[in-house]
Amino acid sequence: MTPPETPAARGAPASAAAPGHPFDRALRLAPLPGDGNRYAGEVTQDYWNMVGPFGGVSAATALQAVLGHPRLLGLPVALTVNFVAPLAAGAFVIEAVPVRTNRSTQHWTLTLTQAGTQGAPAVALTGTAMTALRRDTWGDAEAAAPSVPRPEALARFIPPNAIGWFDCYDLRPIAGAPPAQWDGSQRESLTRLWVRDQPPRRLDFPALAAMADIFFPRIWLRRAVRTPVGTVSLTVYFHADEASLARAGDGYLLGQARGQGYFKGFHDQAAQLWSAQGDLLATTHQVVYFKA
Amino acid sequence: MTPPETPAARGAPASAAAPGHPFDRALRLAPLPGDGNRYAGEVTQDYWNMVGPFGGVSAATALQAVLGHPRLLGLPVALTVNFVAPLAAGAFVIEAVPVRTNRSTQHWTLTLTQAGTQGAPAVALTGTAMTALRRDTWGDAEAAAPSVPRPEALARFIPPNAIGWFDCYDLRPIAGAPPAQWDGSQRESLTRLWVRDQPPRRLDFPALAAMADIFFPRIWLRRAVRTPVGTVSLTVYFHADEASLARAGDGYLLGQARGQGYFKGFHDQAAQLWSAQGDLLATTHQVVYFKA
Repeated sequence: MTPPETPAARGAPASAAAPGHPFDRALRLAPLPGDGNRYAGEVTQDYWNMVGPFGGVSAATALQAVLGHPRLLGLPVALTVNFVAPLAAGAFVIEAVPVRTNRSTQHWTLTLTQAGTQGAPAVALTGTAMTALRRDTWGDAEAAAPSVPRPEALARFIPPNAIGWFDCYDLRPIAGAPPAQWDGSQRESLTRLWVRDQPPRRLDFPALAAMADIFFPRIWLRRAVRTPVGTVSLTVYFHADEASLARAGDGYLLGQARGQGYFKGFHDQAAQLWSAQGDLLATTHQVVYFKA
Repeated sequence: MTPPETPAARGAPASAAAPGHPFDRALRLAPLPGDGNRYAGEVTQDYWNMVGPFGGVSAATALQAVLGHPRLLGLPVALTVNFVAPLAAGAFVIEAVPVRTNRSTQHWTLTLTQAGTQGAPAVALTGTAMTALRRDTWGDAEAAAPSVPRPEALARFIPPNAIGWFDCYDLRPIAGAPPAQWDGSQRESLTRLWVRDQPPRRLDFPALAAMADIFFPRIWLRRAVRTPVGTVSLTVYFHADEASLARAGDGYLLGQARGQGYFKGFHDQAAQLWSAQGDLLATTHQVVYFKA
């Protein structure tokens, strides 16, 4: 997640609630004239997170531009997005270019632009994606889902002073919730939680990409010190196809995240997402700016 | 690493050995006229790996184009490269575009092209990078280096039928070496090894990026079945600055890698690299095509 950098929300979109699931509204893209690579979209209010939208939804939007492209080959395997600048409320253009299409794989570059302060388009997000035909092979989830209590046995977590986008996720921490006391005590940065869209929604690749960014910053847990942060780059590897997404349905996913290195203003996060059935659906990594 | 896909080396560069360290030869780039973003380079013989160069050196070359750029801000924090097509022997052009420069961070897009079969440039590698000014902050290596024997106590590993680029690395497996018998026995995919350039060379960011790709494919260890593979996307997060690189010097790095998910033709790898002094220098992830 890309949490607030300042204590006051500003620039939030003013658009009123529209019909449909908020996630589908956020991902609505309209093809633009030209080479078929450019789509118009709008940053909606539902996932607003103080100084910009929840980064997971921006990542999902970038992936959506690939998935809606007329030349798409296969299913997503890898996605990297870089949060170059905070997205502003309102219109954006996303360009997804199929740079190279091989026999069974396809490589994409991704660029999201918004009108800058001088009106000229400014890049707010860059990225790459790889899609591929998925053929039956030997498979294995070496990273097995940990044994944890079921989501029904746990309470939904809504943080104090929760902002908009927390309404859009049902989060149920199992271990490693945000510190109750910001007392500087140090601990392991391991978080386990259940997550699903709120209201429930059938899992697809964009939703999985968004949930890859659902964990609060590892440094908060590691240090228990209030620290301004922001995700700068996010990578998702998909270990899922239509069948495993369908099995997951609109149920909870089990997520696990931990930090590995914290060094001079940036730390990483390594995470996994499993379905309630134990399918490993995605592994994901990110690097996060912090001010400490 | 991007190991051979076919049993016979083909298309290897014919250039004779030139003076200097092979890694420096591989990274030699000449600025091209224009906007300052384009550099000419050549795939050298030293790191040849059957159907293309060792992928780690290609990643290092992409990073080198950033580090040599006149507009560079700061030090590398994140690098993602996608192996879109095998690189051929001979000339290439790498373009590194500083897409956005913020107060303390800079975002880059990377594109490596080679003359295609029809003579038109074809994209062989895409990527993104993020560089940043590194300021003193609280820091921690939560992923601590495991306790292992020193490299001097271990033998150098040279695989049977080793090809060119194994000459350029001194690899000393600690645990999880490639299977001695390809008997289909399954085991954990954890590898630990020491690695350094051969001949020794003072560590820098490109060398660190290359060593992020030093591990053989996790599926070989997991299954002990000979499996054609190829890395398709590699991400490196750097937790190092000039001081920790200088401490590492030309000594061995400790590497650790394991696979998490193997699904329908692709598997991931999560890895860490520490200096012999225990500094966590990089965490890295990749997704690998496999045919099984």
